[in-house]
Amino acid sequence: MIRKKIGIIGIGTIGEAFLSELNKNIGFIKKNLELDVEIAKIADCNPKIRAKASKIKVPFTKNAEEIIEDENIDIVVELIGGINPAKKYIVDSFKNGKDVVTANKALLASYGKDIFGLAYKYGRAIGFEAAVAGGIPIIKSVAEVLRFGEIRNLYGILNGTTNFILTQMEKEAKTYKESLQDAKKCGIAERDPSLDLSGKDALHKICLLCFLCFGRFPKLSEILTEGIEKLTVQDIVYARELGFTVKLLAVAKKDKKIETRVHPALVPQDHPLAKTNGVLNSVFVDTGIGGDFFFSGLGAGGNPTALSVMSDVITACGQKKFYSLREAKEKYSFKKSKDFDFRYYLRFSALDKPGVLAKISRVLSDYKISIASVSQKETPLNKKQNRFVPIVMITHRATEENVDKALKRINRLSIIKSPTQLIRIEGLCV
Amino acid sequence: MIRKKIGIIGIGTIGEAFLSELNKNIGFIKKNLELDVEIAKIADCNPKIRAKASKIKVPFTKNAEEIIEDENIDIVVELIGGINPAKKYIVDSFKNGKDVVTANKALLASYGKDIFGLAYKYGRAIGFEAAVAGGIPIIKSVAEVLRFGEIRNLYGILNGTTNFILTQMEKEAKTYKESLQDAKKCGIAERDPSLDLSGKDALHKICLLCFLCFGRFPKLSEILTEGIEKLTVQDIVYARELGFTVKLLAVAKKDKKIETRVHPALVPQDHPLAKTNGVLNSVFVDTGIGGDFFFSGLGAGGNPTALSVMSDVITACGQKKFYSLREAKEKYSFKKSKDFDFRYYLRFSALDKPGVLAKISRVLSDYKISIASVSQKETPLNKKQNRFVPIVMITHRATEENVDKALKRINRLSIIKSPTQLIRIEGLCV
Repeated sequence: MIRKKIGIIGIGTIGEAFLSELNKNIGFIKKNLELDVEIAKIADCNPKIRAKASKIKVPFTKNAEEIIEDENIDIVVELIGGINPAKKYIVDSFKNGKDVVTANKALLASYGKDIFGLAYKYGRAIGFEAAVAGGIPIIKSVAEVLRFGEIRNLYGILNGTTNFILTQMEKEAKTYKESLQDAKKCGIAERDPSLDLSGKDALHKICLLCFLCFGRFPKLSEILTEGIEKLTVQDIVYARELGFTVKLLAVAKKDKKIETRVHPALVPQDHPLAKTNGVLNSVFVDTGIGGDFFFSGLGAGGNPTALSVMSDVITACGQKKFYSLREAKEKYSFKKSKDFDFRYYLRFSALDKPGVLAKISRVLSDYKISIASVSQKETPLNKKQNRFVPIVMITHRATEENVDKALKRINRLSIIKSPTQLIRIEGLCV
Repeated sequence: MIRKKIGIIGIGTIGEAFLSELNKNIGFIKKNLELDVEIAKIADCNPKIRAKASKIKVPFTKNAEEIIEDENIDIVVELIGGINPAKKYIVDSFKNGKDVVTANKALLASYGKDIFGLAYKYGRAIGFEAAVAGGIPIIKSVAEVLRFGEIRNLYGILNGTTNFILTQMEKEAKTYKESLQDAKKCGIAERDPSLDLSGKDALHKICLLCFLCFGRFPKLSEILTEGIEKLTVQDIVYARELGFTVKLLAVAKKDKKIETRVHPALVPQDHPLAKTNGVLNSVFVDTGIGGDFFFSGLGAGGNPTALSVMSDVITACGQKKFYSLREAKEKYSFKKSKDFDFRYYLRFSALDKPGVLAKISRVLSDYKISIASVSQKETPLNKKQNRFVPIVMITHRATEENVDKALKRINRLSIIKSPTQLIRIEGLCV
């Protein structure tokens, strides 16, 4: 019988779900896995948690150091999130000979290289299955299996809140604002949902996956990151007419260089990613050896995430090593955003008069952007008086740099009413 | 640097792919994982393999014992398949202090309990990710994550050959025979494909998954197992009209008892399982804690399976323990097939004259089987002379026992031309 004592720092939604699930399973784990797991201490700055802890007869402290310095504790479960003081807690835990389980994607995306390096230096394990895609075992799957399969592309829908909003907009024809309200009402969006909406949460997660796939962390500030704030129902409807669904994709790929990015993308309607609806997360991985893999499941919420925390705790109990978390010796470099190339969906709001299309096309042509299809949409009669019409264009492949320059010039034209909408088309086969 | 020597027994499709992939990755593994993995010896009863071994400068033997008894070898990769002598090879490897990696689902489904027990007794590890669903990391995912999430139902499309045939029948409207020919031509079906077609291959895999989910191996001979041999294009077309796709499902579920079965099933067209086409495999797991999970990928073929073998070898190199493989202490019992209950798709071939439906309905009613919908299909004119028409019926839930008895009586009626087709409807929500 292996005996392990756990200290938990931070009891929020995930912490509570983890506590309750571990308590439910503790008999099973003891009997069947011969692991005697005990929650030895809980730390939280909210004194109200003391009552909860005393109810399940676990010592409580407001002072996380009491866990980190407790010689009897083997595994520290860090669930406070954020960079500070989580970073110090984790590093000090390693120094004190403790393994760590965390769901802290923001921290690992920013300081993963240092933290993994320190885990290695001190011979400690760190589990973070809960940091990406909730209950989907994507960390294990990539780190222990798929990474040996020559991963070429990994595409993820890694944020449940934005996916819920996009699904509402598409299936219920609600506006962005209404859909966001719905998400708040259902407890899906946080009070301040900006991390989710801006794509930053997905960015943190794709950084971790990029590291697991290719052994290198990209620099957060250099990654093309766009949120869903500027998407309109109109775009979603036009995309559908063209055979696409709009999804907030997080992408990590490697050819000669590594390419990492987060942005709304047009995905072919028949692709499994396009069918990931509501709060679900999904990951599509294309490998040289094993073909394509697809994973989907609940990506957030206390219970699914607690499942991953529990699995990591049990792994940490039974064996020290998770998987290698060192940087790749091969120093692949990262492709610059301006060199990315895509086919683009462009929606111009232009004056409804002759010669407009010619003017737009001329600028595009100046930047070597060639047009694959174009359609001028009719506008409802009552709006005709402003004489602005949407023109929807699909381009052939062009570089970000050229498209960026072209749109800057086009947006300055007097025939253009409002900034041109741009959505990248993800080159996925169905 | 950890140094490990590998012996491979059996070089077929998977063995060759594994050899080639390991050789490709050996530098990466050494540099990045600090594992010095060396293929120390290859055994195969086919002397032609000697040439291949010498090409990559690996000692060759026709005698597997030379690997099992080699004190320098740490990990034995068993890829010969079948029960004997694979069983002896694996057990002797444990006794000689070696860890084992295998893709042998037939062996583990039949003798898993003994083999896992011996691994435990001798303190050895056994990896078998490659035994189920090729490259999909479903063994790891279930054993290390999902099993802690209160698994209720696991549904798998676990056989690529039969799924390819069903897809051909559905999408190309080819007959069963033509589709099987196609599968053989493409190298998807083996020369003797009976293990696949009869559902036995899927049976072996679901037994392993059942063990990982619920800690118990069912008895192979007691499991409801039906293959795809009796399915017709007609049934697939009728199923589609009713909103279903026909799939060979392997199921493991637990309520009060465990239920394990393999059979063709009507799956709602919008369910991810229904969209698993061609040689793909997929697994849908419904858990209490984490919600639903879906996995899909290539389930067979040398490369995807080699990826799983490689991942297991690396796991075995880095750490001894895979996951607990002992039986559950709780002795859940297995539900008997006759007590299963389903909604059924029934296709009767009946005489085209008055009173036929009344006769069929009377028998069904005698066995408390109530009819949810019925439609008599028109037959093409040139076949009218035989005056037999298909009657397609969907029942409400009924037990296997009652349906079995009712169909036996109905099939003896003089108005019935040929045995009634029965396909179970899987109660999946979309």
